[in-house]
Amino acid sequence: MKQVPIVENVLKLNDEVAAMNRRDLEAAGVFTIDLIGSPGCGKTALLEATLEAMRGELAIGVLVGDLATTRDGDRLAAHCDDVVQINNGRSCHLESHQVRSAMSKIPLEKLDILVIENVGNLICPVGFDLGQDVKVGMFSVSEGDDKPAKHPHLVAAAELIVLNKTDLLPYVRFDRDVFTRDVKRINPGVELIEVSVQNGQIDPWLCWLRKKAKR
Amino acid sequence: MKQVPIVENVLKLNDEVAAMNRRDLEAAGVFTIDLIGSPGCGKTALLEATLEAMRGELAIGVLVGDLATTRDGDRLAAHCDDVVQINNGRSCHLESHQVRSAMSKIPLEKLDILVIENVGNLICPVGFDLGQDVKVGMFSVSEGDDKPAKHPHLVAAAELIVLNKTDLLPYVRFDRDVFTRDVKRINPGVELIEVSVQNGQIDPWLCWLRKKAKR
Repeated sequence: MKQVPIVENVLKLNDEVAAMNRRDLEAAGVFTIDLIGSPGCGKTALLEATLEAMRGELAIGVLVGDLATTRDGDRLAAHCDDVVQINNGRSCHLESHQVRSAMSKIPLEKLDILVIENVGNLICPVGFDLGQDVKVGMFSVSEGDDKPAKHPHLVAAAELIVLNKTDLLPYVRFDRDVFTRDVKRINPGVELIEVSVQNGQIDPWLCWLRKKAKR
Repeated sequence: MKQVPIVENVLKLNDEVAAMNRRDLEAAGVFTIDLIGSPGCGKTALLEATLEAMRGELAIGVLVGDLATTRDGDRLAAHCDDVVQINNGRSCHLESHQVRSAMSKIPLEKLDILVIENVGNLICPVGFDLGQDVKVGMFSVSEGDDKPAKHPHLVAAAELIVLNKTDLLPYVRFDRDVFTRDVKRINPGVELIEVSVQNGQIDPWLCWLRKKAKR
């Protein structure tokens, strides 16, 4: 029987490359975010609005993961020079070597913040260290108030939870108390903010970014 | 170094157990659906409404996959006796052996239709045969019109695409033509129906189920 490295070794290799990424990003003074959320929760739209709002204030680069198409990369490139699209075929998450390769195409020393927009998925991206400073979990009200309880690993791993599409609250069944209670039960230390990208209400997110930027 | 079976063998084993599932389901005259969609696209809500609408007409069983919690199983069990919850920890998809184990807890010969509600994820579930007759891909308008193009493998593998939350069309940016064109480009033979579970408009789905039930 053909032999392959055991799964633990795959994760160990991922961790080793992630440590290299972290060292280089730290040396360049870049605060790095691994942004994780469902398909369609508004990750790309939030980043488009962020790049516009922060223009001239903070230098932000984006690495964007996707199975197919360069749509997200193209959307973001309209707002920022430092965008790299990572197409990973059928994979459900980014790994640190893909981030390392993409990082090499961006002048890190120019950046204040690097956002890695992970593949739309609440599960597998949680388990892979990319070298980020923090993981941020993003949900939207149209997904329902039960999502933190159903995806506790993401909530537990996140430093910040962003709840998007509050503009849809009048039109969907969503109990804010249930959502908030579950988030805080799973991760009492996590910060929770609400935004509506569609209505341009992203100030809590911009404030958080300003606080986190290292220079 | 410790040795583990190669990944191809894992998929081969999955396929072998899937074939056993398919044989048993076929023998019992059960039409089996692998329902795949994002977290929050409305899979559980659609099944709740379906179980109510079909009561006394078609006997429907449900196997429901989730990382944690028995919420979906509990929701569905209120409408139907033949529900089995599969909690799979950190895994992003169901595998055929989990379905086989869950199947054994349901009297298959009583059923017309078995729906396997996969873990909320557009990616990994596509690659695993569970023994189903068809895979059904589910999207919702709040996820955006670009999701078929970004998840072509699901669209290509599906016999039916269900677009949910049409009630939100007035409140979100969603171009039906873009969505439909991408679906048909990727899979010209696929059937595409629209529903609004929240507004109780699920007739196209019920018609499709009636057509597919084997007896």
